[in-house]
Amino acid sequence: MSTVEERLAVLEAKDEIRELTARYCFAVAEGQAEAIVELFAPDGVFLLKGRQWAGHDELRALYHAAAENVTPKPYIQNHVIEVSGEEATGRCGVEIRMVNKGEAYTVAGHYLDTYRRVDGHWRFLRRDFRPYHWVPLSRGWS
Amino acid sequence: MSTVEERLAVLEAKDEIRELTARYCFAVAEGQAEAIVELFAPDGVFLLKGRQWAGHDELRALYHAAAENVTPKPYIQNHVIEVSGEEATGRCGVEIRMVNKGEAYTVAGHYLDTYRRVDGHWRFLRRDFRPYHWVPLSRGWS
Amino acid sequence: MSTVEERLAVLEAKDEIRELTARYCFAVAEGQAEAIVELFAPDGVFLLKGRQWAGHDELRALYHAAAENVTPKPYIQNHVIEVSGEEATGRCGVEIRMVNKGEAYTVAGHYLDTYRRVDGHWRFLRRDFRPYHWVPLSRGWS
Repeated sequence: MSTVEERLAVLEAKDEIRELTARYCFAVAEGQAEAIVELFAPDGVFLLKGRQWAGHDELRALYHAAAENVTPKPYIQNHVIEVSGEEATGRCGVEIRMVNKGEAYTVAGHYLDTYRRVDGHWRFLRRDFRPYHWVPLSRGWS
Repeated sequence: MSTVEERLAVLEAKDEIRELTARYCFAVAEGQAEAIVELFAPDGVFLLKGRQWAGHDELRALYHAAAENVTPKPYIQNHVIEVSGEEATGRCGVEIRMVNKGEAYTVAGHYLDTYRRVDGHWRFLRRDFRPYHWVPLSRGWS
Repeated sequence: MSTVEERLAVLEAKDEIRELTARYCFAVAEGQAEAIVELFAPDGVFLLKGRQWAGHDELRALYHAAAENVTPKPYIQNHVIEVSGEEATGRCGVEIRMVNKGEAYTVAGHYLDTYRRVDGHWRFLRRDFRPYHWVPLSRGWS
């Protein structure tokens, strides 16, 4: 059986991890590339469609290019987290409002995440984005 | 006054119930009918528009027919939960991306839920889905 | 270091504040102006686009006019909360489905919130709504 201290620590970890993903959304929505990068562990990785960006330098390049001008608006939900000491795994749904060449796009999918506690703060160790669809709003999903 | 143990148990119950609804979304999004059914208590009930499916056999028939091919994408939010021992009631909002005869549909509504702890795991005892609208994305809500 | 009691109290406060924002969504979705007003502290303020409504009387006028007929459907997500004793600050994302002159509108943005505990219940002390866009669904965001 876990102690009260251990049980409380798990709830606090999950609470902080949920807020980590919320902070990610706000940093993306505001095009704050540096703030996004700081949410990743130094060796953190972002994966999308077979590509990956590993470590702060590559993440910085990704988010400066991808987030600063288009400022997608992600909304994260349906979060399941399993904490194991200083690491955790999670899965969360996401809906994103984007603009592509002046046209409204809508995206839905989920993230497969791994988190690690670094200097007392939970960070993304690995964020694997699995889109269900990525389509013009005028056309919709199929 | 509640003890620390009791207060912690309530927070843990609510945390697990929120994850139950998240797991439901992922199982639906992936068309995993058996996984959806397992999230219900053996005598669990799903209700929609005056119809109901009670018990694992009826739920299995429902979700095999409804979820395996179309794989709606539900996103659950705005969750309010009241725990009372081994049972709980909850209300949560939902937005769903569906496809109907090749056309993108958007659904919004909320669930009125009852949960029960079965063998140490929270399950749906009753899930009553109250849609606000269920419309082609191209037409929108009114 | 915080005691177990203090740490538990913070998690309970955050849990109740998240439910406060969920209750707000349901009251708005159902056009229950009085129920919305009760979620604000007596001196609570709502701000939107440079205008503000302060205190229950002004809030009552706002929500009777704005919420009773159109019943927007807000979905709140991405919630970050910092508790400091009997007050707290928070930021949460929101997507809203509205109808304007018979036409479907979609809204996205976030709230900058301040909360206060009043008679043992968390209430909105200040809710500043910052929309990203507020557009016909048929046209989409840009």
